[in-house]
Amino acid sequence: MDEFALIHQYFAGLSAPRSDVRLGIGDDCALLLPSADEQLAVSTDTLIAGRHFPLETAAYDIGWKAVAVNLSDLAAMGARPQWFTLALSLPEVAEPWLADFAAGLAACATAHDIALVGGDTTRGALSITITVMGSVPICERGFLRSGAKPGDLIAVTGSLGDAALALARLVARAEEQPQDKALRTRLDRPSPRCALALALRGLVHAAVDISDGLAGDLGHVLHASGVGALLRAEALPRSAAFVALATADRVLPLMLQGGDDYELCLCIAPEDIASAQGIAAAQGTALTVIGEIQPELGLRLEVEGRVQALSTTGYQHF
Amino acid sequence: MDEFALIHQYFAGLSAPRSDVRLGIGDDCALLLPSADEQLAVSTDTLIAGRHFPLETAAYDIGWKAVAVNLSDLAAMGARPQWFTLALSLPEVAEPWLADFAAGLAACATAHDIALVGGDTTRGALSITITVMGSVPICERGFLRSGAKPGDLIAVTGSLGDAALALARLVARAEEQPQDKALRTRLDRPSPRCALALALRGLVHAAVDISDGLAGDLGHVLHASGVGALLRAEALPRSAAFVALATADRVLPLMLQGGDDYELCLCIAPEDIASAQGIAAAQGTALTVIGEIQPELGLRLEVEGRVQALSTTGYQHF
Repeated sequence: MDEFALIHQYFAGLSAPRSDVRLGIGDDCALLLPSADEQLAVSTDTLIAGRHFPLETAAYDIGWKAVAVNLSDLAAMGARPQWFTLALSLPEVAEPWLADFAAGLAACATAHDIALVGGDTTRGALSITITVMGSVPICERGFLRSGAKPGDLIAVTGSLGDAALALARLVARAEEQPQDKALRTRLDRPSPRCALALALRGLVHAAVDISDGLAGDLGHVLHASGVGALLRAEALPRSAAFVALATADRVLPLMLQGGDDYELCLCIAPEDIASAQGIAAAQGTALTVIGEIQPELGLRLEVEGRVQALSTTGYQHF
Repeated sequence: MDEFALIHQYFAGLSAPRSDVRLGIGDDCALLLPSADEQLAVSTDTLIAGRHFPLETAAYDIGWKAVAVNLSDLAAMGARPQWFTLALSLPEVAEPWLADFAAGLAACATAHDIALVGGDTTRGALSITITVMGSVPICERGFLRSGAKPGDLIAVTGSLGDAALALARLVARAEEQPQDKALRTRLDRPSPRCALALALRGLVHAAVDISDGLAGDLGHVLHASGVGALLRAEALPRSAAFVALATADRVLPLMLQGGDDYELCLCIAPEDIASAQGIAAAQGTALTVIGEIQPELGLRLEVEGRVQALSTTGYQHF
């Protein structure tokens, strides 16, 4: 099957039509209609087999995750998702694999109303690069990493460490437990917090997507904002499955350094936190205060009443 | 060196600042200001080592070419270049290589006034995926593949077959000739026709970037427009270096099926061709009429007075 037939069969018409797509897949460029009075938010993320997802991950989940991790970057900017492009490198054309991959991609794209508008397929080791585009009103600054202020409360969506624990148990070939399924869903089908981010516009001083681990990604906010932070270990939100399966010595490393949760870490003024938590609750998402921004540089962790310094070194790709 | 230090050192500030970049590299998303009354043109292309460029290609040239091949897609839409993102997969961090790669990327980006606004670096086999963004006035349709009309003249920019001949001679380890340098420049540092495309707005019915070979790429135009075409072999433009080094039996295959030239193939009404050629000449670029659009489907080639059918099967990635 040639490249063009392949693209046409699996990817053209994969996502729901949008009125702001003037020309979609199939020409040298897509032609899109940005909204008047809005800024364009753009981000790119690559997923490589065996590095960003386990080699045995189902094709459907790879497709889902590739879209989800990119949407999470839009969420971290408070941007409304609109369009994405897909660069897919494949070792071979295995049609059942492609069909499943496209179905997972389509499911996540449809759930967030984002249209696939272009792409490129090449032969090579399996990797997926997606570029997402969305919009932020020109009157707003987006959720920048540089906007954290001393006194802001630090909150995270959802729970921490689930994806990292799922991966650790997979690598260790741990005996299957009833709670593993919930953890695997967190690893394989992350839920980007796009809708919540849009609803929180105007309440967020700074935000970051926790994809490389809370400590490292919060470290970017602290560095960009010229501030420090104190986190409280007891406050870090954990799921029932995590509590059941994480061994005591791994709890904090998994929640602080474990990546792949695709939750948001948000800095919010104390007077706005109740409103923000109300909005999150209405969407069925937990928004948990885990610490506060302080003027003194550095990241600190309070564990059982004692404060210790915490490294902000996140996941290292090299 | 960690990923963030690497990105910061080599890629932040790589391209000249643009006033329409509100937030560049370093946050979850870039924030860009699309022009009022313009459509956004978007395209993505991946380059894989050993497939899209010879393994021995210099890092500078890889950087240049990665930007150039993407700009060529904007040119084929008549779009004005604005921004790009870079997803770079590297087997290791070799700093001299990265510095040269960034310099080539910067040189091509600066030459076309396009800003690097975001990216992702991962460890893996060497591959480069770039997404380019540009603009087309809303009042125009862009240069679509579907706009060719019977009677239109078919013209190509520059010359054909140079890059394919350079690659063939490299693969065959042909004895070095004085003309090889010019051919290698065509393979390693293609010149996307962005400025010419902008100047030809309003004169072009259909266009395509000839990156997979003239026959295959023109085939996309014919298919999208529901028309056919006749090309004249004698009219196909060839460079002095090509004439000197292409053996007689390879001349037509190299010009018709050889990819990587990144020239444009344009369909223009006969009454507009003189204006178009005048504009091209003023930019120092040849614009050569090589045939015409016909109502009968299919691609035909006239060689020494005889007409034969020509396959539109371009370069096959699978």
